[in-house]
Amino acid sequence: MNERDFIALLRPLAGPAGLNLDDDAAILTPPAGQDLILSTDTMVEGVHFPAGRIGGGFSERLLRTALSDLAAKGARPIGYMLSVAWPQGRDPKWLNGFVRGLHDAQESFDCPLVGGDTTSTTGPLVASATVFGLVPKGEMVRRSGAKPGDDVWYTGVLGRAEIGLAIVTGKISGLVAELSPIEQLAAEDAYLRPEPRFAFRKILRHYASAAADISDGLLSEAGHIAQASGVQIDLIGATTKSAAFGDDYELLFTSAVENRDALQDGAAALGLPLTRCGTVLNGVGVSVDGNTVDSGGFRHQF
Amino acid sequence: MNERDFIALLRPLAGPAGLNLDDDAAILTPPAGQDLILSTDTMVEGVHFPAGRIGGGFSERLLRTALSDLAAKGARPIGYMLSVAWPQGRDPKWLNGFVRGLHDAQESFDCPLVGGDTTSTTGPLVASATVFGLVPKGEMVRRSGAKPGDDVWYTGVLGRAEIGLAIVTGKISGLVAELSPIEQLAAEDAYLRPEPRFAFRKILRHYASAAADISDGLLSEAGHIAQASGVQIDLIGATTKSAAFGDDYELLFTSAVENRDALQDGAAALGLPLTRCGTVLNGVGVSVDGNTVDSGGFRHQF
Repeated sequence: MNERDFIALLRPLAGPAGLNLDDDAAILTPPAGQDLILSTDTMVEGVHFPAGRIGGGFSERLLRTALSDLAAKGARPIGYMLSVAWPQGRDPKWLNGFVRGLHDAQESFDCPLVGGDTTSTTGPLVASATVFGLVPKGEMVRRSGAKPGDDVWYTGVLGRAEIGLAIVTGKISGLVAELSPIEQLAAEDAYLRPEPRFAFRKILRHYASAAADISDGLLSEAGHIAQASGVQIDLIGATTKSAAFGDDYELLFTSAVENRDALQDGAAALGLPLTRCGTVLNGVGVSVDGNTVDSGGFRHQF
Repeated sequence: MNERDFIALLRPLAGPAGLNLDDDAAILTPPAGQDLILSTDTMVEGVHFPAGRIGGGFSERLLRTALSDLAAKGARPIGYMLSVAWPQGRDPKWLNGFVRGLHDAQESFDCPLVGGDTTSTTGPLVASATVFGLVPKGEMVRRSGAKPGDDVWYTGVLGRAEIGLAIVTGKISGLVAELSPIEQLAAEDAYLRPEPRFAFRKILRHYASAAADISDGLLSEAGHIAQASGVQIDLIGATTKSAAFGDDYELLFTSAVENRDALQDGAAALGLPLTRCGTVLNGVGVSVDGNTVDSGGFRHQF
């Protein structure tokens, strides 16, 4: 197995913008009236994903987590570029799984491969997905628009991915053991196949003053929005039970109080749980029921 | 040193499209009448770059080699995204050098950082640059347009980067020892700071039927163009002395015979050496003075 074989495996994943992967380059020109939104995510075997499971699970999760950043901007996906540093001597069967995971994720979101680079490494697998999306011009939702008085909301259910990771890595805790087999599968799915909330993107663009996806836990993302917007975010303690958990990739956003009914109706129409979890205040940082907390979240140490 | 400190070091490199690196996303919308061209390159410490020299040299070369792909398309650069998997426990002084190398390269080409992702790894440094460029709509130069009868050309001087690598890694051969100190510096520079041939882009768009940058040696790139174009490329033996050497990042391109004078005048006006090195034929693969050769080039083995 060499670089050219790998590219041959990837070629069926390429969309028209990828020029059949023949050109070391892609063309991706947004239609008039649309902005192109870009984001990139990197995953390292043994750091962001359990070592020894680097087939389809790794690549599907990589692409889904990268796409989640687009969903948080109110964008819809149109393609991605992939960089892979593949461990030397690794069983080629993992490579087939890796490609299948990409296939499954890109089919789910109609988001073809447009290019990339493959190389070998003496270390663990490192892969990056740079994803591209579109929003109507000027409508990207930023982290910086939260205003004092706004409500704070999150979509979905938090904490399931953390349980899923415990299952995937075989660290079955008492809590996990109490779950039904179906609940365990749902938790594993939440970790391995996080759902970018593209279905919510029009509601987000219309009503959200600021948004982020919850990759590193509720407190951490609240901290990012608070800092970028120059405000304080006060969370309701009862809604933050799973606040420290990461990896859920649900949306955290702020919105003016008068949008409450519209947001709840819109989310209900999508079958998506929606939780009002706090209020934007004049101030800095994050608090829970008025008590300032450290919103640090997870930071890679070098 | 953690992820947030690293991002703080990178923030001064961000252009307006990067939104101050506050958003995990960028906006990059080409002006009307322009196509957005994308390419990505990945470098691994110890594979693509000597281990133990991962400061400014590593990052400057990474960005320059990625940009070279845009130059080969006839594009001008407008920005890049960066993914870095940084080795745990590595001296932070290397991180400052890494950022300085990016700074130096992006200043040279007016190509700001627009976003990225930083993480830690248990293995060697892995970094990817995804670069963005513009061409007038429909004018991107592809690998697939070479036609039988076309001339084959390359820019610049080949083989210097190979000598530069020998100097950088301390493998001083007899050939290197015969070079003057200035020639040695030029060779080292050719390896560490390859020059994307953006100055040549208008000539390339106007006259080239196909093009590629020479990253893996002349024969290998001729093979890529031959395959993508469905033609044979016959090289002139006397011009292929350095054919097996890679890393020069000069341009290889094809052009109709009637463009000879215009190409030579254009290159001379830029002070850029230009060598006519072959002819496009009906057939497949690459030949040298009519004798078929294996154009394999370097391929990463997994």
